[in-house]
Amino acid sequence: MTAETREHILACGGRIIHHKGFNATGLQEILRVADVPKGSFYFYFKSKETFGLALVDHYQSRLSAQTYPILKDTSKPPLKRLANFFLWFRNYFAQEGFIKGCPIGNLIQEMGDVNPAFREKLNQSLEKLIRSVTPLLEEAQKRNELPLRLEPEATARYIISAWQGALIRMKAVAGPEPLDTFQRMTFEVLLT
Amino acid sequence: MTAETREHILACGGRIIHHKGFNATGLQEILRVADVPKGSFYFYFKSKETFGLALVDHYQSRLSAQTYPILKDTSKPPLKRLANFFLWFRNYFAQEGFIKGCPIGNLIQEMGDVNPAFREKLNQSLEKLIRSVTPLLEEAQKRNELPLRLEPEATARYIISAWQGALIRMKAVAGPEPLDTFQRMTFEVLLT
Repeated sequence: MTAETREHILACGGRIIHHKGFNATGLQEILRVADVPKGSFYFYFKSKETFGLALVDHYQSRLSAQTYPILKDTSKPPLKRLANFFLWFRNYFAQEGFIKGCPIGNLIQEMGDVNPAFREKLNQSLEKLIRSVTPLLEEAQKRNELPLRLEPEATARYIISAWQGALIRMKAVAGPEPLDTFQRMTFEVLLT
Repeated sequence: MTAETREHILACGGRIIHHKGFNATGLQEILRVADVPKGSFYFYFKSKETFGLALVDHYQSRLSAQTYPILKDTSKPPLKRLANFFLWFRNYFAQEGFIKGCPIGNLIQEMGDVNPAFREKLNQSLEKLIRSVTPLLEEAQKRNELPLRLEPEATARYIISAWQGALIRMKAVAGPEPLDTFQRMTFEVLLT
């Protein structure tokens, strides 16, 4: 058994849970899709809950790996990098047919109230996301590209809320309108 | 059996599902809390799915009944009514300990992708909410109380996203910050 097996189980289980939710996904289904025996699962994860908590880190690190280059591309002004960050997700969801939503947001909705360990883990994940947006807004303000009335941290919190909510609306609409409205209202109205 | 029994089952089941989610709530638990036999449930609802769809209407009509007077209180200017509308929910969630979130948003997150009947029903519910906000923004604009750069319908869609997302963040934080940030950023920054 290798670290790759662990990653493989997380990747397979993560895809199913992203689509169906945590409670609706049975261990048997994860084992079948990952094509590993039960013993292998329990070698890496003490329980389905342990697996779920590891999944938050898995989602987070995949997200960071894929979007870090966009946020750190200093050849572009900070607000342009931020807009590109959200457009990257818009393209991802377009490929998926505008379903599934945010894997972190989904887990908060489903597990936040019923499991304090999940809540804490998911809150840390959202806070990391907010802390990756705030410095771009601070940088934009230093460059006089963001009105001074927009306090960077509160604005980052608001934008992340607006984006999480747009991802919920996207699931209800099953189309691009909520993400397009988010992009336009954030970058052509709120931040101007 | 009476219409009150149907409402009673919806009210009891609705409270459990609001807290635990649709899939995690068993029919037996609903029957036990509502103190009705299984036959009574199936007299009103063909299946758990039928019950879930009726629950969307139940949540919607409770929400409308409680907030309609706030939105229609023409003794106050339109943006004040809108701010009071969201403050009403802020007070509701304060009493609940800032958990549970939006029952409609929760169901979208959980059921939107896996059940088209739910998705359509939940989308209608969100659209109703957006259509109750848009006229207030139009009225504010006619009274020169809202900048012209804010197109009322797109702004209503953005605000509802920001609110739905704030309710997700609230569940992760289990505290007032996300709703307070929403209120301040919406009414003291975005709409000014």
